Amino acid sequence: MSTITHAIAAPSPGAPLAPTTIERRDLRPDDVLIDIAYAGICHSDIHQAKEDWGEAIFPMVPGHEIAGVVAAVGSAVTKYQVGDRVGVGCMVDSCGECEYCRAGREQFCVKGNVQTYNAVGFDGETTYGGYSRQVVVKDAFVCRIPDGIGLDVAAPLLCAGITTYSPLRQWGAGPGKKVAVIGLGGLGHMAVKLAAAMGAEVTVLSQSLKKQEDGLRLGATDYFATSDESTFAALAGRFDLILNTVSAKLPIDAYLGLLRVGGAMVNVGAPGEPLSYNAFSLLGGNKVLAGSMIGGIAETQEMLDFCAEHGIGAEIELISADRVNEAYERVEGSDVRYRFVIDAATIGA
Amino acid sequence: MSTITHAIAAPSPGAPLAPTTIERRDLRPDDVLIDIAYAGICHSDIHQAKEDWGEAIFPMVPGHEIAGVVAAVGSAVTKYQVGDRVGVGCMVDSCGECEYCRAGREQFCVKGNVQTYNAVGFDGETTYGGYSRQVVVKDAFVCRIPDGIGLDVAAPLLCAGITTYSPLRQWGAGPGKKVAVIGLGGLGHMAVKLAAAMGAEVTVLSQSLKKQEDGLRLGATDYFATSDESTFAALAGRFDLILNTVSAKLPIDAYLGLLRVGGAMVNVGAPGEPLSYNAFSLLGGNKVLAGSMIGGIAETQEMLDFCAEHGIGAEIELISADRVNEAYERVEGSDVRYRFVIDAATIGA
Repeated sequence: MSTITHAIAAPSPGAPLAPTTIERRDLRPDDVLIDIAYAGICHSDIHQAKEDWGEAIFPMVPGHEIAGVVAAVGSAVTKYQVGDRVGVGCMVDSCGECEYCRAGREQFCVKGNVQTYNAVGFDGETTYGGYSRQVVVKDAFVCRIPDGIGLDVAAPLLCAGITTYSPLRQWGAGPGKKVAVIGLGGLGHMAVKLAAAMGAEVTVLSQSLKKQEDGLRLGATDYFATSDESTFAALAGRFDLILNTVSAKLPIDAYLGLLRVGGAMVNVGAPGEPLSYNAFSLLGGNKVLAGSMIGGIAETQEMLDFCAEHGIGAEIELISADRVNEAYERVEGSDVRYRFVIDAATIGA
Repeated sequence: MSTITHAIAAPSPGAPLAPTTIERRDLRPDDVLIDIAYAGICHSDIHQAKEDWGEAIFPMVPGHEIAGVVAAVGSAVTKYQVGDRVGVGCMVDSCGECEYCRAGREQFCVKGNVQTYNAVGFDGETTYGGYSRQVVVKDAFVCRIPDGIGLDVAAPLLCAGITTYSPLRQWGAGPGKKVAVIGLGGLGHMAVKLAAAMGAEVTVLSQSLKKQEDGLRLGATDYFATSDESTFAALAGRFDLILNTVSAKLPIDAYLGLLRVGGAMVNVGAPGEPLSYNAFSLLGGNKVLAGSMIGGIAETQEMLDFCAEHGIGAEIELISADRVNEAYERVEGSDVRYRFVIDAATIGA
């Protein structure tokens, strides 16, 4: 016996999303049934629904920024009880046994983590994501959302939040450090808030100054337009850390020139086409180019606790389910400040 | 009153090197006069003598791998006395006041360090390098060569040694770590010896298996040919650290695929043309691409002490001064095992 729940699905690659119903499995001993309250729209949802990243599974119910309330728990679940405020991010399972799983880095599970949607679980069943009224998830992949954060503004933390929090922590954002954030979008605006809360001095590097007022309000002390050539001369050798949140093909050498000796440029966005750099740009100051992919479950919980402590949530535009296709178009046009969140109560309503 | 000393110089870009005489300055209070015993031939000597790297100063006396004996000291020198065994590497001065100089990272001096040759000192005088009988160097840029190392095999440590030691230390080569060294040349053979002495498990990645026997003798446990496509599949996800010592344009994504999660590929060689990579190659395992440029003076001394403790010197072919042009040709053809060292007693003899 499984649960039938309302959802919004892409029936085929690139087709408009439409209401549907899906099955959620009966609770296993370690499962949690979550009444979804909100689901964020991540740009990667759009890429997958369009099959931009290789063969995908349809119908597809996207959504890996899930916030809701526990509706039921399996017999072995002790960590959560009915009524708890919880969230689910990009992963819903991993082998649990490999060195990476044991180290809390489930995103690098050697058997491959099971993604929240557009994936096949270890049980052979397709996973469906958060654009839905309910979801069943193994307790180890459920995080607690502290009372201090609204569920609506918490939802995007489960992807955009952890994706930026993890590299900021790993690469030492904090007091005395100068951090630049490239791009003020879904990821970028979280990076600004988080880095500022960590105590770093934050600069936004954006194509234009259009969002400058927002950037400063979110915690940046400086805001520069990268379309202005003089920006690169003015900021030469300035930053300890550059977090690149955009997926465009950037002039890497120019950005490496903005790093101090020993500084790091960390990419969390990835363009489809190759990037180019000159080895001298790295040698000339022992510089670093790195990548970072989401974060582990324990780190995601740490990030949520950090956000609660610092009063941080995403900046969102709350929409009803019937506006998802319109929202997709606006995300593709970079016309969102700064994350669309679906009110799950409107799905199938 | 200055000292006239014999040297070998390139009279103009790309011209054969020929014997000449040069002036060395009278000792300032903090200067050390060194009777050079040996000078290593670094590939960068050839690039500079050919003016491959932008405008250079001619006549040019190359050489930044200098080993010798103190012949005289200035009035304020307390660290060295006549008869001490000493070495000089790539730098002979820096501002001494900037944050990097104060941190012992003189190679990143904000005013620019003064290179051992093909440079102009803060006094306005051109610097001449180690292909010479004598050199005068500020005491702070002179390192002590411990008794345990022959001066001939010590000379190449001053560039090839520190260039590989520094990134191996920075990126954690040691027990339990798997380190790959790309290229078994002047830098690569030092990297193998040093990483093995640090306790890492070392693999050489070379174009062919021609030097396999040498690689294993120098301390590698494994040796693979990168011309064999199966190498990249066999070694996928294996290394904590890859030290790239070659200046060729490598397929960066293929090498990043050999790194474990969180692993780093550090470049100490730099091709003139840009390199290309896919951002997903970094994101997919929180991987790192980095650069490293020589090392500071204190770290160079640490490296020399480490080498003495572990009985490490370079593998050299000792040549007389009249064979320098022939040696240059052989270096360009990768035909040297593994560093040419000039017997300075034959200069002007």
